[in-house]
Amino acid sequence: MLYVVGLGPGEKKKMSLEAIEVIKKVDVIVGYTTYIRLIKELVDGKELISTGMKKEIDRCKKAIDIAKDGKDVAVISSGDAGVYGMAGLILELTSQMAEEIAVQVIPGITASIAGAALLGAPLMNDFCHISLSDLMTPWEMIEKRLNAAASADFVICLYNPRSKGRPNHLARALEIIQQYKSEDTIVGIAKDVGRKEEKVILTSIADLDETVVDMTTIVLVGNKETYISDNWMITPRGYKL
Amino acid sequence: MLYVVGLGPGEKKKMSLEAIEVIKKVDVIVGYTTYIRLIKELVDGKELISTGMKKEIDRCKKAIDIAKDGKDVAVISSGDAGVYGMAGLILELTSQMAEEIAVQVIPGITASIAGAALLGAPLMNDFCHISLSDLMTPWEMIEKRLNAAASADFVICLYNPRSKGRPNHLARALEIIQQYKSEDTIVGIAKDVGRKEEKVILTSIADLDETVVDMTTIVLVGNKETYISDNWMITPRGYKL
Repeated sequence: MLYVVGLGPGEKKKMSLEAIEVIKKVDVIVGYTTYIRLIKELVDGKELISTGMKKEIDRCKKAIDIAKDGKDVAVISSGDAGVYGMAGLILELTSQMAEEIAVQVIPGITASIAGAALLGAPLMNDFCHISLSDLMTPWEMIEKRLNAAASADFVICLYNPRSKGRPNHLARALEIIQQYKSEDTIVGIAKDVGRKEEKVILTSIADLDETVVDMTTIVLVGNKETYISDNWMITPRGYKL
Repeated sequence: MLYVVGLGPGEKKKMSLEAIEVIKKVDVIVGYTTYIRLIKELVDGKELISTGMKKEIDRCKKAIDIAKDGKDVAVISSGDAGVYGMAGLILELTSQMAEEIAVQVIPGITASIAGAALLGAPLMNDFCHISLSDLMTPWEMIEKRLNAAASADFVICLYNPRSKGRPNHLARALEIIQQYKSEDTIVGIAKDVGRKEEKVILTSIADLDETVVDMTTIVLVGNKETYISDNWMITPRGYKL
């Protein structure tokens, strides 16, 4: 069996029971080095196949080969395996290779949800996820989605908001969003959720210091009604109170 | 301490360790009757305050009163507490009542993520969540969001897609979506995820039988690239394979 497992944001207590059980029972764990480190207490004595960033296809093909040999293997993703994670790539590859391998996707808590819980309740109304990485989606499409999401006042979760190779994507995204949302719109930033360095920042589009944002950060842009109270970021659901 | 806890989709193994620990340690559990039933093995001997649907405000006020009395109390939501759940209402109320109560939001696996894992990997590219319930959001705003999301080819997760009181919302939503997406666009339906009756259906906008959809169903409408292979719903991430 080939499992694709979402580990959640990075600490054991935010993993599901099912994810822990699967990690414990498989013969082999395949994943990006950083993620294997997150679960090191669970993987003692197992065969570990870890590779660096941008080696996703290699990693998934190795896992498929191991499963074909009859071993139980888990490919791990941080957050949820199906949200910009490894589930899609595994299924694309098994489909393309016409391999008859049993696959099971084990869901996890994705970064937007984990970050939102720390920030308060920013996702209480309609929201969307947009990745600002243009490695695999053309930047024009990303801009189109930013325009659409902001024009209909979705709460917007920005994944992969800023990296050394893409230092200006967040600023450009906020420029687009600001064509529709006021510069006072609340922005919540959650950094390194579930790790020792975990940190949240409440700010606004106008006041956001983008240099605090990196690839392990999730940025949540509120809707017109989102407000801050007692250091919580709150998007009203619409109850009359 | 007042905890707002996301239980995940409905079976214990999809709860986080943290959610289980919190449920076990609190004095009082407050929640909608159906959700308390989902965790009955964890709540033995605890004070339970359960109310029916549409009593959310009463329920949350009771929980706040209990926390003010110095007890540890958990308000439970299915899925994630911050996605159309109880986290927002609790924080709106404590903010409005200027109550100095320590609140902690414990995230969970929301229905779109749990449903997606059963269907395959439909959420591998940008996606959004839209609730089709107009109890608290004007229908015009819901239509605006459907138009925006479909026009920018987001994968669209429809929450509260259809109920006895709103039998036609899903059909109307699909009519709007079909102005932008082809009628062959893949639709994944996940019913009663994490419960005994759990079921997934793969179909298309044109072939969807809306009578199978009810309030415990999540409907995921793919993007232009979403396809079906080996009974999996797959949205490519964009890797060149």
